Amino acid sequence: MSHVVELRSDTFTLPTPRMLEAATTARLGDDVYGEDPAVIELEELSAKSLGKAAGCLMPSGTMANLAALLTHSPRGGKAVVGSESDIYVYEAGGASVFGGIVYEPVTAAPDGTLPLAAVAEAFDVDREDPQFALPAVLALETPHNRRGGIPLDAGYLAAAGALAREHGVALHLDGARIFNAAIALGVPAAELAAPADTVQFCLSKGLSAPIGSVLVGDERSIATARRYRKMLGGGMRQAGIVAACGIIALTEMVDRLADDHAHARRLAEGLADIPGLRLDPEPPRTNMVFFTVDTRHTPHTTETVIEGARARGVHLAELGPGRVRAVTHSGVTAADIDRAVSALADTMAARPGAGW
Amino acid sequence: MSHVVELRSDTFTLPTPRMLEAATTARLGDDVYGEDPAVIELEELSAKSLGKAAGCLMPSGTMANLAALLTHSPRGGKAVVGSESDIYVYEAGGASVFGGIVYEPVTAAPDGTLPLAAVAEAFDVDREDPQFALPAVLALETPHNRRGGIPLDAGYLAAAGALAREHGVALHLDGARIFNAAIALGVPAAELAAPADTVQFCLSKGLSAPIGSVLVGDERSIATARRYRKMLGGGMRQAGIVAACGIIALTEMVDRLADDHAHARRLAEGLADIPGLRLDPEPPRTNMVFFTVDTRHTPHTTETVIEGARARGVHLAELGPGRVRAVTHSGVTAADIDRAVSALADTMAARPGAGW
Amino acid sequence: MSHVVELRSDTFTLPTPRMLEAATTARLGDDVYGEDPAVIELEELSAKSLGKAAGCLMPSGTMANLAALLTHSPRGGKAVVGSESDIYVYEAGGASVFGGIVYEPVTAAPDGTLPLAAVAEAFDVDREDPQFALPAVLALETPHNRRGGIPLDAGYLAAAGALAREHGVALHLDGARIFNAAIALGVPAAELAAPADTVQFCLSKGLSAPIGSVLVGDERSIATARRYRKMLGGGMRQAGIVAACGIIALTEMVDRLADDHAHARRLAEGLADIPGLRLDPEPPRTNMVFFTVDTRHTPHTTETVIEGARARGVHLAELGPGRVRAVTHSGVTAADIDRAVSALADTMAARPGAGW
Amino acid sequence: MSHVVELRSDTFTLPTPRMLEAATTARLGDDVYGEDPAVIELEELSAKSLGKAAGCLMPSGTMANLAALLTHSPRGGKAVVGSESDIYVYEAGGASVFGGIVYEPVTAAPDGTLPLAAVAEAFDVDREDPQFALPAVLALETPHNRRGGIPLDAGYLAAAGALAREHGVALHLDGARIFNAAIALGVPAAELAAPADTVQFCLSKGLSAPIGSVLVGDERSIATARRYRKMLGGGMRQAGIVAACGIIALTEMVDRLADDHAHARRLAEGLADIPGLRLDPEPPRTNMVFFTVDTRHTPHTTETVIEGARARGVHLAELGPGRVRAVTHSGVTAADIDRAVSALADTMAARPGAGW
Repeated sequence: MSHVVELRSDTFTLPTPRMLEAATTARLGDDVYGEDPAVIELEELSAKSLGKAAGCLMPSGTMANLAALLTHSPRGGKAVVGSESDIYVYEAGGASVFGGIVYEPVTAAPDGTLPLAAVAEAFDVDREDPQFALPAVLALETPHNRRGGIPLDAGYLAAAGALAREHGVALHLDGARIFNAAIALGVPAAELAAPADTVQFCLSKGLSAPIGSVLVGDERSIATARRYRKMLGGGMRQAGIVAACGIIALTEMVDRLADDHAHARRLAEGLADIPGLRLDPEPPRTNMVFFTVDTRHTPHTTETVIEGARARGVHLAELGPGRVRAVTHSGVTAADIDRAVSALADTMAARPGAGW
Repeated sequence: MSHVVELRSDTFTLPTPRMLEAATTARLGDDVYGEDPAVIELEELSAKSLGKAAGCLMPSGTMANLAALLTHSPRGGKAVVGSESDIYVYEAGGASVFGGIVYEPVTAAPDGTLPLAAVAEAFDVDREDPQFALPAVLALETPHNRRGGIPLDAGYLAAAGALAREHGVALHLDGARIFNAAIALGVPAAELAAPADTVQFCLSKGLSAPIGSVLVGDERSIATARRYRKMLGGGMRQAGIVAACGIIALTEMVDRLADDHAHARRLAEGLADIPGLRLDPEPPRTNMVFFTVDTRHTPHTTETVIEGARARGVHLAELGPGRVRAVTHSGVTAADIDRAVSALADTMAARPGAGW
Repeated sequence: MSHVVELRSDTFTLPTPRMLEAATTARLGDDVYGEDPAVIELEELSAKSLGKAAGCLMPSGTMANLAALLTHSPRGGKAVVGSESDIYVYEAGGASVFGGIVYEPVTAAPDGTLPLAAVAEAFDVDREDPQFALPAVLALETPHNRRGGIPLDAGYLAAAGALAREHGVALHLDGARIFNAAIALGVPAAELAAPADTVQFCLSKGLSAPIGSVLVGDERSIATARRYRKMLGGGMRQAGIVAACGIIALTEMVDRLADDHAHARRLAEGLADIPGLRLDPEPPRTNMVFFTVDTRHTPHTTETVIEGARARGVHLAELGPGRVRAVTHSGVTAADIDRAVSALADTMAARPGAGW
Repeated sequence: MSHVVELRSDTFTLPTPRMLEAATTARLGDDVYGEDPAVIELEELSAKSLGKAAGCLMPSGTMANLAALLTHSPRGGKAVVGSESDIYVYEAGGASVFGGIVYEPVTAAPDGTLPLAAVAEAFDVDREDPQFALPAVLALETPHNRRGGIPLDAGYLAAAGALAREHGVALHLDGARIFNAAIALGVPAAELAAPADTVQFCLSKGLSAPIGSVLVGDERSIATARRYRKMLGGGMRQAGIVAACGIIALTEMVDRLADDHAHARRLAEGLADIPGLRLDPEPPRTNMVFFTVDTRHTPHTTETVIEGARARGVHLAELGPGRVRAVTHSGVTAADIDRAVSALADTMAARPGAGW
């Protein structure tokens, strides 16, 4: 059997040859002293790409999000977050644990938006009443991973930003895959980022760099976030080897995300014809395909489908109980997609457990 | 006009003459040294009343709840709480702020229960996966204030306790008014308390003592909570003046809570006949009556009704947007109830703003 | 044997009859709603006594200190404290635990001052360098308990305040016994308090009230501290029964502290004649007498001296390894002092363990 | 002028060609899923090198230390640290800020040890008394940076470890440069590490890797630390590009640290002959040379000396007020040392400010 088709996540992307070359030829310095040229270049480029004044390289999106919440909320403030957001579900509650920040989850709509009426209600506390944690930051996620990779459109983001400003609340955008959103919506990423005080995006997902995320925003917020980065232990020495890859990611790997989206649609079309699988949402909007197994009409379960595919060289993951996620990325070709469709068709046609 | 009918809360209860006498005749000591006899007596009595091994006097229910969560959850643990619970809504997020604990709110059912399937889902995280905060404590509230003062029945509490134990999660019961629940259900408070690891109840609500709550539980939990009490600044010196009132509260003021419940029903019956007001829930189960103003059929609003009643000597409070709460207690007589009904009937019969 | 002579601490003071009368006749309200008249009166009186704009009643000095540090320092700020201060030694590290504040202890001089050069060094960090916690608050203690109850003079306090202001750092004064300091120095307490942003003093020590401390300061600081009081669980309902005692404490119990100081000197003079005991400091400046046991010249140890005195009806405490502390207060008469001297003389004259 | 002689820190080391080759040829995976082979290999190799069961790659020594303190101390525990340690001085107070841990600094002796009597005193608190934070972890640093790079000998470490164990306190060793200590002492690093529960060392200092530190210890501690790494945001995706460099660092760069030590001695010998400079300590024990400017006998100051050297192509840093530090490393040759000596001699011979 040939190579594995890795669809569990776009975090599995490998650095391109151009990245590795850049990493080995970059002029390096000690970034903790602010002297690594590649890091400085990446931070400036990132800020510019998203229309912000400043940027700060972080070892992960988790740290970028955490530093942003710590920056925007004092001890005892409230972070209004999506009930299904990565920040709330997958980041171990860091803002409460390390920052004394109270999460208030608002139920995300099927399209990944947080209904603004519910957000307004979360903002609307009597600021004189000591019973209440005071809202300090709103975090939105685009595209929204656990809502099928749906991008938030620019109008919604602008309205959310206006609502936040009106209440004196900062807006942080978890744009781990914001360039996927921009490509999908056909708008510049900077337009999506405009209403937000800070935005983080990952170099290490679809953009294919091995490590790193960048937090961008105004000078003052980024200076504060940089303090927190040091305190959290995110200051890295010759970080230029990471940043050099990130520069390639930003300059050479953004436009090709359209291919990943096309591959996601191709995958969805293939799955639509397989009895017993149900796409949701449909069609995919970015590089994620979610589907469920219709256990009323097949003997298969989420687990047997994932195992069957794996036995046929296709890696999928369960994300949220009963949902299977397939993510396309630079390591997945159109031929891989066809192989994945076949593998799933074969799995569903076989008895659970057969032919592995 | 005669005295005010104070229905905003049972926290307005004044100490009885017997309490004040006890406060002034109690033999006092320095409770920070563990030498105040009245405090020791109160703590033992409280523990015994709820079938627990030990008790600790706290200056407030907020501190009792906070100390309990700190006791049961390490840094980074998860507290599963009701979406409408006092702990989550009205206590300023203290467990996140001071303890690095992540709240996970579960939507409370109309009867004040947290559906056990949803609780189980909140418990059910992969303990090996560092993405997730690990569930450490479940907090339930009975009677459930923002769900109309409905008591949780013993069967539900036992089932919740079993579920928690099965997952290695502690159960804390915010029983601020647990004796109201016991009276309403006709079961001993200790039976309700049995499934919980710790229970807090307030001396200063229906039981009419001026100050204080008691946290009860096993020896070890209470010893830990006592440490936290010191750290939080809840250690009081000659706390016997508070405890002496609390002893009277526990020994003389529990049975009479039945009167408060009867008064609540009497109030509800009176309100049921007033056009434009809608009771919810109905009938009241303990000492709280909640109602809304039917703004489609009267020119009144929540605000004008509260103002109208106040102008007529009856104090009510809004609790939750659009809901009015009236709480009966030892300072409210049957005649006061009738006066409250008249005041509301007069208010609704008049134009908003008239006759004030 | 007659009553015990309680010299372990002035926290053992019992409320006076006038206090108990005030407690039982005070018009009460719910202080969490800001409606308790006695509390309001006490807070205003306290603020005025110390020349500040506002005050907030707290259940303990520990909470008053903690709320002050939380008020003055954001997450990650540095609290410069005395190495022997109550805040650092006896308050369980609350500001770090609950507030994410870093303590930097500065070694206290024998007279209880923190040398200003050392304080300046603690303030002097590069504010741009994320390696350092930024100084936010300086806490001083007067009289300084573990430095023998020595009061800080007004000149030192003014200089410390000026230094703090120059660095943008707040000054909090732990004036648990500030009225002892004022009496000893012969200056108004408000003069000592003037350089500080916030001051806390205890009603429950020499002033003899059963419970409570008051934090005073500017309107904004006190409003913030009041928020923290709620979050910590220090909001008490009919707190007027506590406040009424406090009003008597402030209006009737301050001037008589001079008697306690005279008693402390009388005790010191008596002890000076007992071979094997060594006073330090000498003479006592307020209401505390510290002495050590000269184990080279007597067979006694700290423990046997304390046990011997206790066997003779006199309660002393070890405070700091190898030091014995005797504290005078309203429950200790001149005759009690003489009895204490005799008890210690007898103890020292006897073999360790004899005659108990 | 030729290249700069960089003596500010060994954090300026650049990756070797072999490292860059390894980084570009390593088989990579997603380390957040535990699937990066190079990371796994580095962690195993690190653990083995220090005689421990497990290891965890961290983006920085700061995070490795922070995760270790969080692992060993619960909320409210006490970390006994050196007054001059990097953990206490340069890591922004992270354990207090994020972990609610109280630092208790113990004054470091001139040889970098914390006197065990003082450590024992810090451990010796009444565990039943809620006034005290309970000691949970002792952190030692070897070689001790701000004490001149002096290594702690194996006997001291063993005694400290025994003392900690006796009190139920964990021992964490900040061994950022532990291989320098081992080389200097002529003992295996594992022997120095043996008494410690956890040890962290930096790949990015003398070992010359661009990024990363490894925390090693028993399986359980490392599993807990790994959880904290995720929460702090230290989980990196294709971390193999970092780890591959680290493997070369550990396998090829340890023995050559002896050269750095020889260079440090050569530098010290050169400086000893320059009037107006005073070495302290003397001779250097590892790769650090500290000296002060004798301002009584030369018109130079710390600042003018550093500026003068910089003007002559030699970079030095002030570390601690009035002390200059020079650190040797793989980027510094014997010829560079001679150039540094000349530059300093020339600087001291010239007027401050002359010839720049």
